[in-house]
Amino acid sequence: MKIALLGCGTVGSSVVQLLHEQAADLTARVGAPLELAGIAVRRPGRERPDLPVDPKLFTADALGLVKRDDVDVVIEVVGGIEPARTWLLEALGAGKSVVTANKALLAEDGAVLHDAAAQSGADLFYEASVAGAIPLLRPLRESLHGDRVTRVTGIVNGTTNFILSAMDATGQSFTEALEEATALGYAEADPTADVEGFDAAAKAAILASLAFHTRVTAADVHREGITDVTATDVASAKAMGCVIKLLCIASRVDDAVSVRVHPAMIPRTHPLAGVVDAFNAVYVEAEAAGQLMFYGRGAGGAPTASAVLGDLVAVARNRLTGSRAAKESAYADLRVRPIGEEITRYHVCLDVADRAGVLASVAGVFARHGVSIATVNQAGRGDAAVLVIVTHRAPDAALAATVAELRSLDAVKAVASVLRVEGDQP
Amino acid sequence: MKIALLGCGTVGSSVVQLLHEQAADLTARVGAPLELAGIAVRRPGRERPDLPVDPKLFTADALGLVKRDDVDVVIEVVGGIEPARTWLLEALGAGKSVVTANKALLAEDGAVLHDAAAQSGADLFYEASVAGAIPLLRPLRESLHGDRVTRVTGIVNGTTNFILSAMDATGQSFTEALEEATALGYAEADPTADVEGFDAAAKAAILASLAFHTRVTAADVHREGITDVTATDVASAKAMGCVIKLLCIASRVDDAVSVRVHPAMIPRTHPLAGVVDAFNAVYVEAEAAGQLMFYGRGAGGAPTASAVLGDLVAVARNRLTGSRAAKESAYADLRVRPIGEEITRYHVCLDVADRAGVLASVAGVFARHGVSIATVNQAGRGDAAVLVIVTHRAPDAALAATVAELRSLDAVKAVASVLRVEGDQP
Repeated sequence: MKIALLGCGTVGSSVVQLLHEQAADLTARVGAPLELAGIAVRRPGRERPDLPVDPKLFTADALGLVKRDDVDVVIEVVGGIEPARTWLLEALGAGKSVVTANKALLAEDGAVLHDAAAQSGADLFYEASVAGAIPLLRPLRESLHGDRVTRVTGIVNGTTNFILSAMDATGQSFTEALEEATALGYAEADPTADVEGFDAAAKAAILASLAFHTRVTAADVHREGITDVTATDVASAKAMGCVIKLLCIASRVDDAVSVRVHPAMIPRTHPLAGVVDAFNAVYVEAEAAGQLMFYGRGAGGAPTASAVLGDLVAVARNRLTGSRAAKESAYADLRVRPIGEEITRYHVCLDVADRAGVLASVAGVFARHGVSIATVNQAGRGDAAVLVIVTHRAPDAALAATVAELRSLDAVKAVASVLRVEGDQP
Repeated sequence: MKIALLGCGTVGSSVVQLLHEQAADLTARVGAPLELAGIAVRRPGRERPDLPVDPKLFTADALGLVKRDDVDVVIEVVGGIEPARTWLLEALGAGKSVVTANKALLAEDGAVLHDAAAQSGADLFYEASVAGAIPLLRPLRESLHGDRVTRVTGIVNGTTNFILSAMDATGQSFTEALEEATALGYAEADPTADVEGFDAAAKAAILASLAFHTRVTAADVHREGITDVTATDVASAKAMGCVIKLLCIASRVDDAVSVRVHPAMIPRTHPLAGVVDAFNAVYVEAEAAGQLMFYGRGAGGAPTASAVLGDLVAVARNRLTGSRAAKESAYADLRVRPIGEEITRYHVCLDVADRAGVLASVAGVFARHGVSIATVNQAGRGDAAVLVIVTHRAPDAALAATVAELRSLDAVKAVASVLRVEGDQP
């Protein structure tokens, strides 16, 4: 069984290491030895003394490697849309099985890749693309085949979970927590993809597609990042018995799916509330199975490589036995519901003038939009008065319109923050 | 694809319901319709108006049903060793695939069943046998194929977790909590199998066998139940920042495995600590993947049926494509390490006479057995004085010998409780 490895950074190097260390076990499990046909990298001449591999295997010609007749399986750990898409379509078109960790490509072009795989009868596996080491996609794909998933709620970005956990533990600001995350290597020099929720949105698209047997792309995902979450929000969540997490939420409502990524308060008793630091976890609700949660490391070389190798064993065995992975049921092509139709709860902080009649006019705005208020708390007096309002469940569009009107209200100096509240009423 | 269903109690009925409700999706996923060939029950004549199934399918002749030529897959949800063993060996011997939820049989005769499956080329799947709905065995079997599991720590019995959660939440005694569990249907009329750890020990044997690719039977598992856990232990755990759980722990140490079931204190920061009520969770540590946790419902008709159907889709697809499940690597046949060789920590409560020199003589006993004391706390005075001692890590045999000698000490009126402490030092 010959393998083309595209990319040899942190994850690729770990894959090479594991293939070497576990060779005997892998051979036994697959039924044939797994052999590297070549490793495509940008600089094939670079010295890699730590890797237990023949230097002649390195090549700069990824496409040439993919096209080689003796290659059975292509592992792609480069990331990004192009040239990865060209490579993988070439591989799948030629009936070669693909294992990839490329969330961006799957979230944008998953349908095209799946179609190519279906046409040639090749396998397309991508466990490592969401929540790194956690065996999650295969259970969603296979173990829950006799069940109906109704909702998936995930913490799928380690950087933002580290930042929010630090803010919760120490009371520091977003900026301070981001600095700490950067210093510790949990955040990249340009953290935009993480803190603005782009990474989580790609994973949400993949999860929603698998969970609901439909096709959702990253562009379909309503996305809000965590840069506006303040230390005051975190403290207010604490006072409510909640914690703030960046959640990806995919749910099925009748013949539509709703997919969104945004910071939200969840009760501290929710299983996701205890998921701290850079850990990931995905909470799945299914009709028969009830509540499930999958927890583990979402990133890192060895954890991601573990997921890649698990997939590799599966596709290699399938090739050897002439079999294939479980088929998808007919795609449902469900409508993606706009965020405005979501039924959510809001936590709103308002800087207000501390004078008679303020609460009445604020409450009037909520009432006009049909949004029922669950609790009101006023903190501070005079110029520093803050109203904290938590609503009952209402359509997101009504809540957004309420907030927009509050901004224009004389008595409201500023809408300091707006956060959704998820989970059962705490 | 014709299915023989053996057993039609809570789980079997849910299987019938799901087969009916999800028929279209299942057909698409398998590639052929799934059809019930027959349902073996004790009383085939009993009215079952709620089940969407032809009454003629019911039969009392399970073995005859299994032997029928048109049966492709046998689902067994009866439980117990015999006659289930005879039925399943008959099925596997004839090359029919088996899906079973029978933990007792697998824990006692897993090797025989696996051998029969290997010989005829049939599939043997049993996701529902451990931790009900949680997709756990398949990930252990398949997703971690390129990794090495080092330790599995599980809460795999919902009844005992419900009881211990209630004791932790309310301070009630074991007896009171058991009564509540019985009243709510979480404990059976005879709760022995649960509260004495037999159920958890069977599951521990299955988990250890899969995780370490070796063969462990229920008889190999060191087993202690929760009947001796007192409200004082629970309070003492709380004071230490811990919670008491009935854990099944399987670990690999060099060329041996250690498998044990006993109540233990774990820090409240441990991911398993938040698993309350009747929920199950299994925490897996692997060399490359790091820490993983799988959480969900461990029992109940619909959750268990969800796991059975997930397996059914897999084995039905395999039959249709002429493929088989992932092979095991060569069995390792690892030595099972006796409990005495385990390195653990102990939490010991002693009723002592409150007089000078007691601590010195108690401490002397620990010292003689080479057990280092981490903390000592004395509560009460006079006749009601209690010494609470937590040790550092030491061989279990040394700890057991220490406790035995303490029992014979004049100054010690009683050894009120002994509990192991797991997880990192809190």
